Amino acid sequence: MTDESERLARVVLSRIGEPGDPRLTDLVHELGGSRVLASLREQAADRELGADLAERLESTDPAKELERAAARGIRFVVPGDTEWPTGFDDLAHAPHLHERGGVPVGLWCRGALRLDEATEHAVAVVGSRSATTYGADVATGIAATLAGESWSVISGAAFGIDQAAHRGALAGRGPTAAVLACGADRAYPAAHRNLIDYIADVGVVVSEAAPGCAPTRIRFLARNRIIAAAARGVVVVEAAVRSGALNTASWAAGLGRTVMAVPGPVTSAPSAGAHQLIRARDALLVTSGEEVLEAVGPMGAFALADPRESEGPRDRLSGRERQVLDAVPLVRAVDSGSIARTAGIAHTRTKDALLVLHRAGLVEHALGRWRLATEPAETA
Amino acid sequence: MTDESERLARVVLSRIGEPGDPRLTDLVHELGGSRVLASLREQAADRELGADLAERLESTDPAKELERAAARGIRFVVPGDTEWPTGFDDLAHAPHLHERGGVPVGLWCRGALRLDEATEHAVAVVGSRSATTYGADVATGIAATLAGESWSVISGAAFGIDQAAHRGALAGRGPTAAVLACGADRAYPAAHRNLIDYIADVGVVVSEAAPGCAPTRIRFLARNRIIAAAARGVVVVEAAVRSGALNTASWAAGLGRTVMAVPGPVTSAPSAGAHQLIRARDALLVTSGEEVLEAVGPMGAFALADPRESEGPRDRLSGRERQVLDAVPLVRAVDSGSIARTAGIAHTRTKDALLVLHRAGLVEHALGRWRLATEPAETA
Repeated sequence: MTDESERLARVVLSRIGEPGDPRLTDLVHELGGSRVLASLREQAADRELGADLAERLESTDPAKELERAAARGIRFVVPGDTEWPTGFDDLAHAPHLHERGGVPVGLWCRGALRLDEATEHAVAVVGSRSATTYGADVATGIAATLAGESWSVISGAAFGIDQAAHRGALAGRGPTAAVLACGADRAYPAAHRNLIDYIADVGVVVSEAAPGCAPTRIRFLARNRIIAAAARGVVVVEAAVRSGALNTASWAAGLGRTVMAVPGPVTSAPSAGAHQLIRARDALLVTSGEEVLEAVGPMGAFALADPRESEGPRDRLSGRERQVLDAVPLVRAVDSGSIARTAGIAHTRTKDALLVLHRAGLVEHALGRWRLATEPAETA
Repeated sequence: MTDESERLARVVLSRIGEPGDPRLTDLVHELGGSRVLASLREQAADRELGADLAERLESTDPAKELERAAARGIRFVVPGDTEWPTGFDDLAHAPHLHERGGVPVGLWCRGALRLDEATEHAVAVVGSRSATTYGADVATGIAATLAGESWSVISGAAFGIDQAAHRGALAGRGPTAAVLACGADRAYPAAHRNLIDYIADVGVVVSEAAPGCAPTRIRFLARNRIIAAAARGVVVVEAAVRSGALNTASWAAGLGRTVMAVPGPVTSAPSAGAHQLIRARDALLVTSGEEVLEAVGPMGAFALADPRESEGPRDRLSGRERQVLDAVPLVRAVDSGSIARTAGIAHTRTKDALLVLHRAGLVEHALGRWRLATEPAETA
């Protein structure tokens, strides 16, 4: 358990600092919130800090902050809490991106689901806001499959793929977490107020930004690292070539998470980012929730059989019968002697095999000549 | 130049043997056709060979075979000929597949295009006979791009992707070669008689099987290795999970050729084989002819720029202006002091930057408060 003064120090730091500002996160991870806050106050007294920051340091009342947050159903989870997911500590060693990074000083959480439970078996499903119906359908399907195995779906509650992923998880009655760039009490986009509130009812809404904070671009970039850290792997469903989803994929790669991408038509611009990731071997191509689980699940737990077509009549033949079948012409019928020569098998044995193939409906026979009964399969 | 007796010996071996039978190809590659044929004739005299094979050995008149072939516009190209592509010799060291393999004893060619020219800068484009319009369009487009750079398109003249690939090459007035499983004088499928004859007019039709031979499954499997050997790389456009196109890809991998695959919707069965190849890291994902050329062309000749969206107004900002922009809220406007705090930049400098951003149309201003002018880009 984190002691109360450390928690209160981190509330102040969360309120006055920017999400993912590594000048703050890295220092607090190493020295603790109380020590960093004390040092800031000393600097303020020495007038080394700007008057504005010094004023805010003094005026922020952490106990009141927690009280106001609690009134909105929001709790502040910090490292050391039983609810704190150890996975977030990986951020201490991941490379910074866009001058953001580090372990959050704390996370503001709204919802019944515990943060450690929401992230224990979790996959992030992210992608374009301007998704196609194809992409949305695939995201929903993957999320539903994850939900069916009680895996959490982490996403950002945005339009398009994010929304489809949350909905797939909710439809499958699986756990889901929405990580926001604004305060956990706010809804961005506003049109997703109901979706976000529903996620808070049955899952959890998470933000590194303090309650009331507005969404800004830098907060989205910092938010993406929380999505990546919260999951075992990230699935990019559709993403433009320069997009938040690819930013999340970069965070995931830096964190050693499994990066996956769903392909689509090469003629579809929203799939270009996914294709770019796969081409660069930065992501594993996945086509289903089962393949996602195989990639992120415990070794062998979700191992898939090699994709093969179902067994055909050909698979039930002996080696010699197959050899003879392979020598039967597709179009113009020939006599059994010619087939024997092509197959390189004695004439009498060839005739025996042809009878078996005839019974199996694989060859046709007329006027002493043989040909295949049907068009050759794709295997030809 | 190959001496005439060696060529005639290989004609006999091509007529009496099966395409890609490694008992024949490997021996002939090592010892030469004359020696292998002489040995077969000795065995026949000793009655070690079947009566039928002995009879055919005697009755085959290679000079007449060449004459009859020439009457149909077909020549017999053997190793050592100036027209023989050295790339085919790689087959001597490639693993056998389905008990087929080895350097062909010779190739029957119909068409004006020399075999070495058809294969010098060549890419094979193969795929499903039951292609979708999406797959056919992509195959045609890739082939047309290759044609535009005077690269050859090698394929098998089948329905679906093969046909689309040849047509793309022909439309782009590029060289193209059709490698058949039946004799070079025949047309399989019969519906492609015109296409195959047209390829013989402007390109070349190639077969390891002697003229008149019927297509059989084993000849398709042997044929696929010729397609793979003829090209620098193989592009699989659409392919079922157990298909000839994947067989060609296996040959290409064994030959050290570049294997590429075009993705498609994960909901489309004909793309399953291509996705399987990419998932297994057996193939590079490609989305265009340009990417194909980049993969198979001489180092750097077709290097593509990193795929990026075109430069936006954001790219023309200074670092500080971008920092301020990243701190402007998306929805609810705030005063410049709040933006300065979020950005961590002095208030006067923030105000200067906001003016620049306002002139660029990136932020809106009303009643002393600022917000982003538009919905954030996907980059958020």
